[in-house]
Amino acid sequence: MTITTTTARLVPVAPSRGALRPLGLDEVAITGGPWARRQRVNGTNTLDHIEGWLEREGWIANFDLAAAGALPEGRRGREFSDSEVYKYLEALAWEIGRLESAVRAGTGGADASGADASDAAASDAARAAELDARLRAIVARVAAAQEPDGYLDTRFGRPGQGARWTDLEWGHELYCLGHLFQAAVARARTRPGADDGLIEVARRAADLVCAVFGEGGDERICGHAEVEVGLAELGRALGEPRYVEQARLFVERHGRGTLRDIEWGRSYYQDDVAVRDATALRGHSVRANYLAAGAADVAIETGDDDLVDALVRQWETTAERRTYVTGGQGSHHQDEAFGEDWELPADRAYSETCAGVASVMFSWRLLLASGDARYADLVERTLFNVVETSPAADGRAFYYANTLHQRVPGEPADPDVVSPRAHSSLRAPWFDVSCCPPNTARTFASLAAYVATADASGIQLHQYAPATIRTALDDGREVALDVETGYPLSGSVVVRVRSDAPSPWTLTLRVPAWAEGARLVVRPADGGADEVQNASPRGRAGTVSVARAWAAGDSVVLDLPVAPRFTAPDPRIDAVRGCLVVERGPEVFALETVDLAGTALEASDFADLRIDPATALRDLADGGVAAELVDARTGARAEVPFVRYHEWAERGPSQMRVWVPALGA
Amino acid sequence: MTITTTTARLVPVAPSRGALRPLGLDEVAITGGPWARRQRVNGTNTLDHIEGWLEREGWIANFDLAAAGALPEGRRGREFSDSEVYKYLEALAWEIGRLESAVRAGTGGADASGADASDAAASDAARAAELDARLRAIVARVAAAQEPDGYLDTRFGRPGQGARWTDLEWGHELYCLGHLFQAAVARARTRPGADDGLIEVARRAADLVCAVFGEGGDERICGHAEVEVGLAELGRALGEPRYVEQARLFVERHGRGTLRDIEWGRSYYQDDVAVRDATALRGHSVRANYLAAGAADVAIETGDDDLVDALVRQWETTAERRTYVTGGQGSHHQDEAFGEDWELPADRAYSETCAGVASVMFSWRLLLASGDARYADLVERTLFNVVETSPAADGRAFYYANTLHQRVPGEPADPDVVSPRAHSSLRAPWFDVSCCPPNTARTFASLAAYVATADASGIQLHQYAPATIRTALDDGREVALDVETGYPLSGSVVVRVRSDAPSPWTLTLRVPAWAEGARLVVRPADGGADEVQNASPRGRAGTVSVARAWAAGDSVVLDLPVAPRFTAPDPRIDAVRGCLVVERGPEVFALETVDLAGTALEASDFADLRIDPATALRDLADGGVAAELVDARTGARAEVPFVRYHEWAERGPSQMRVWVPALGA
Repeated sequence: MTITTTTARLVPVAPSRGALRPLGLDEVAITGGPWARRQRVNGTNTLDHIEGWLEREGWIANFDLAAAGALPEGRRGREFSDSEVYKYLEALAWEIGRLESAVRAGTGGADASGADASDAAASDAARAAELDARLRAIVARVAAAQEPDGYLDTRFGRPGQGARWTDLEWGHELYCLGHLFQAAVARARTRPGADDGLIEVARRAADLVCAVFGEGGDERICGHAEVEVGLAELGRALGEPRYVEQARLFVERHGRGTLRDIEWGRSYYQDDVAVRDATALRGHSVRANYLAAGAADVAIETGDDDLVDALVRQWETTAERRTYVTGGQGSHHQDEAFGEDWELPADRAYSETCAGVASVMFSWRLLLASGDARYADLVERTLFNVVETSPAADGRAFYYANTLHQRVPGEPADPDVVSPRAHSSLRAPWFDVSCCPPNTARTFASLAAYVATADASGIQLHQYAPATIRTALDDGREVALDVETGYPLSGSVVVRVRSDAPSPWTLTLRVPAWAEGARLVVRPADGGADEVQNASPRGRAGTVSVARAWAAGDSVVLDLPVAPRFTAPDPRIDAVRGCLVVERGPEVFALETVDLAGTALEASDFADLRIDPATALRDLADGGVAAELVDARTGARAEVPFVRYHEWAERGPSQMRVWVPALGA
Repeated sequence: MTITTTTARLVPVAPSRGALRPLGLDEVAITGGPWARRQRVNGTNTLDHIEGWLEREGWIANFDLAAAGALPEGRRGREFSDSEVYKYLEALAWEIGRLESAVRAGTGGADASGADASDAAASDAARAAELDARLRAIVARVAAAQEPDGYLDTRFGRPGQGARWTDLEWGHELYCLGHLFQAAVARARTRPGADDGLIEVARRAADLVCAVFGEGGDERICGHAEVEVGLAELGRALGEPRYVEQARLFVERHGRGTLRDIEWGRSYYQDDVAVRDATALRGHSVRANYLAAGAADVAIETGDDDLVDALVRQWETTAERRTYVTGGQGSHHQDEAFGEDWELPADRAYSETCAGVASVMFSWRLLLASGDARYADLVERTLFNVVETSPAADGRAFYYANTLHQRVPGEPADPDVVSPRAHSSLRAPWFDVSCCPPNTARTFASLAAYVATADASGIQLHQYAPATIRTALDDGREVALDVETGYPLSGSVVVRVRSDAPSPWTLTLRVPAWAEGARLVVRPADGGADEVQNASPRGRAGTVSVARAWAAGDSVVLDLPVAPRFTAPDPRIDAVRGCLVVERGPEVFALETVDLAGTALEASDFADLRIDPATALRDLADGGVAAELVDARTGARAEVPFVRYHEWAERGPSQMRVWVPALGA
């Protein structure tokens, strides 16, 4: 493993070693396209929506009750409701950092029609100040609930409540603290030295965790992994190796059976097999990915290459055999768990939104460690088709689970009512278990940190969106790049170099696994001839690189073929045998019955429809893709638009399928 | 609907109207073949096994604690554990009735090697007496726990327990009583006037239910249907129309939303839509079938033909679209519920054993009402492939759920440990929720009651097994028939007439839907020429009939083609598209990896195996079927034995599949 020295900036993950150094929100800004739109909606509608519901449901007020000595009476929400407040604080911290970075760089408002740059900056600054005040207010309420020895949880430890640490299987105390630590990391990196107290709260809690669960102490683990990844990063952010060591202890203690056996087995909470001995992610899919992410952090910080190798093997098996075409993970409703290899039913695919978030966390860590583009490829697929699928376009309703086959049109969720977590087939505003809104919010707010990295040789682009990149190479040379692209609708990604470099450095671009026929064109600013390079992937995601003494005005164009295509499943996946999925670029498409209206298939039984792979797919002006469908019973045919999967169910109740049976299969 | 007057004998269901009159254990004895073997194992090993575990787990002792005023301390088992004691009492009552009928008729021991008839009768009589003593002892303990007003439940109503009827959603009080009523029915019909007190206990409890939940009283329902079917039959057995009326009230109150809404919706307990308005069985599959059976009883007793029609429609949709090839029902693990139409994944098919038992109850009632052979066809499929699959050959371990695809070999269950209900992939001796052992036991003990019926025109045979039938037609004429057959291994069913009839009556035999090419041969005792009749079904199960002035010695031979065959799934079932199942007669076969040992496919990945439909299936001497398999990756081929699905997992851990992908699909 290459060792690089990193200076942690505005990033959620800052390993001290690894192949790549992440670039933060102060170095990368997403300035347009669908991700900029999502970030804007997320930073406004979604954050306001979340805070409204946290207050309405009393999950922030639980801290007030704790401070007032009024618990357990009046406590509301599930045992892990504290964690939603912490994830929201993390989202706020990243959003404040994002807005303030945009104000400093003048990159705000680029996609907002009509606003000039100074208006945008003023608006961003005002919003950042407002969010900062809100963050401070909530932190104050949380801090008031912390006990003198650092303990913080509204559900345990008071007369009338369970004693501290007595229900590690289901109590989620350490899980909640893990999210507190991640919030503190976000704050520490976006507002160093802030006087709001969040970092001190986290530090006191982490010190208590180390005292109780340290070497020689309580040797159990939390039933829901998260404290590992939170402690490891808090240790990095605050320069406290003790926290990383505590994370290591928790990781190593998985698989010793210290948690009670349950109906679903100890694999549910990854307490069946040691992390370094496991061959695939298993059990509860969010727990499994959070643990893997934390284990990756520990392995990288401690130089434990065996553990890294074990995690790589688990990632490979999981990506190949236990991951939906959308990137979604977890096929069981009952225990929200991974199935066995190839057990990927589209019927009731669980594909929990938070498993998508957690999978991005795990893949990202392996990408930083190894530089292997396949991790970024899965990140992209998961971002477009799981994380982006959860929120509605307006950012005020969410999918908890992301089915790939809706057999009966869902009932619209009441926008004023809390939904059970996974039963509604349409997006719902809030859930009893409402982890998806703040989990997607913190991811979208920090999304720019997943776009690009640097290493000793140059810059790597992993995700494609209109963006500005302003950073310095490891040798101190300043680099400025602007990315212009209509991706993923267009496959043309233009990288304009805005800085001169007297000696060469390398620009590396990811080539997705699907981009057969991709090519790279270098257009020198001096009017020299274009240099064209074959960039076709060889069956798996790869990279294409150009090393050059760049001059401002040089540009590089990556041409990715984004014509719509049929994708066949692995023949070992039983549940979708004989089916095809329509894809374009990284996006998976879906067939919704609302689009059959007015066609010759309007009256067809949805179960009788077949896709004709012998006819061509056709791009539609609105970004959809048209495919020829046949009614297997009547023979009726029609060309029908498919929608991007992440946009499905935006037009009311519909039947839907991602995998469509092929004619003749 | 034809109206017949029935005289209730030793039958679990005795409608006062309907097309067919059921014949009881005193009229039909199964004398050989697999069902006689199962009845013998059930009546010995299984009953002893159940009583041992009921005592060991304290579920009978709960009644002692109740009588001693020592509850709730020390109570063991789930909220519905009383019901397992009642189902066991029902099984005992039927088994006592079965044995005593065999002693009276001299039909016992026919299949036991070496024992002569008088030895067999002595042995049966001794066992009946032993079981009768056991039944009486348990009834005395149950009766001692009943409160003066008739209330009986070890989980509610005492200081420190929930108040009576305060948790109808999950408390199962009425459900338990429904099973008590069915036990009392079995006892009333097999031992009229017995002085053990069971019938009085049931009567007092039923009177209390009528008082509390009668017209003008509490208008709610039980979260788990069962009291309806129990009350209706108790009313029939004891001549108490009030109980039938109370059953009617409970049936009519479903769908009014009197139970709390839950994560899975009120469909879980069929409180979403009125029974007469529903279009398919839905929600929890055991609850749904018990309710449908009770609704059928109510509809038939009250002459409510609209309700019968609604139930027929629900049965049709459910049988076509929501039933596995095994007859299994319920595809969700999470809520043990039916999926939507065509949602029948072999992956983790739930197919709960008790749903199979309950489905037989529902189908049987519609068969008696209508005489339509398709109900008996589903009964047969379900008996062979679900109810018989649950118990191990030795009757001491059970499947709670019956998957159709085992991806990873299961771990053997510890014979000394209680298993979680559905997680083990091998049969387990006992479960936290242990409804399957006593539920299959009561079904097997009363199985002879499902074999044949009578009506004004003659006798109908619905299930084929070596049997003696001794009954009287509605006009009083005595009829004696002996059935000789090696079914289902052999397709030849010989019915020997042992009684003369001066005027004709009609013998009717079911022709299964799969029996294309079936024929019926009448062989007169007088040496006259055979009369041959085409008996081929026309795409669905039917019947073939012979009206004749029968002479003792006449015989009828039904020849059913039982060559092994491939069956393709309905193309609307997504999860098994491109797969085939191997069947022979009513039995479904399974591929187990244990049978790959020593073949060219021994090292193949189970997920790569394909069945070659172009090669012939071949009967094996041990009753198995050989099929040609191909490794899709290596091209290796081998002929591999398939086992009867109900015999799978008898040889240790294995991967298994019922639906096998077809070569070229």
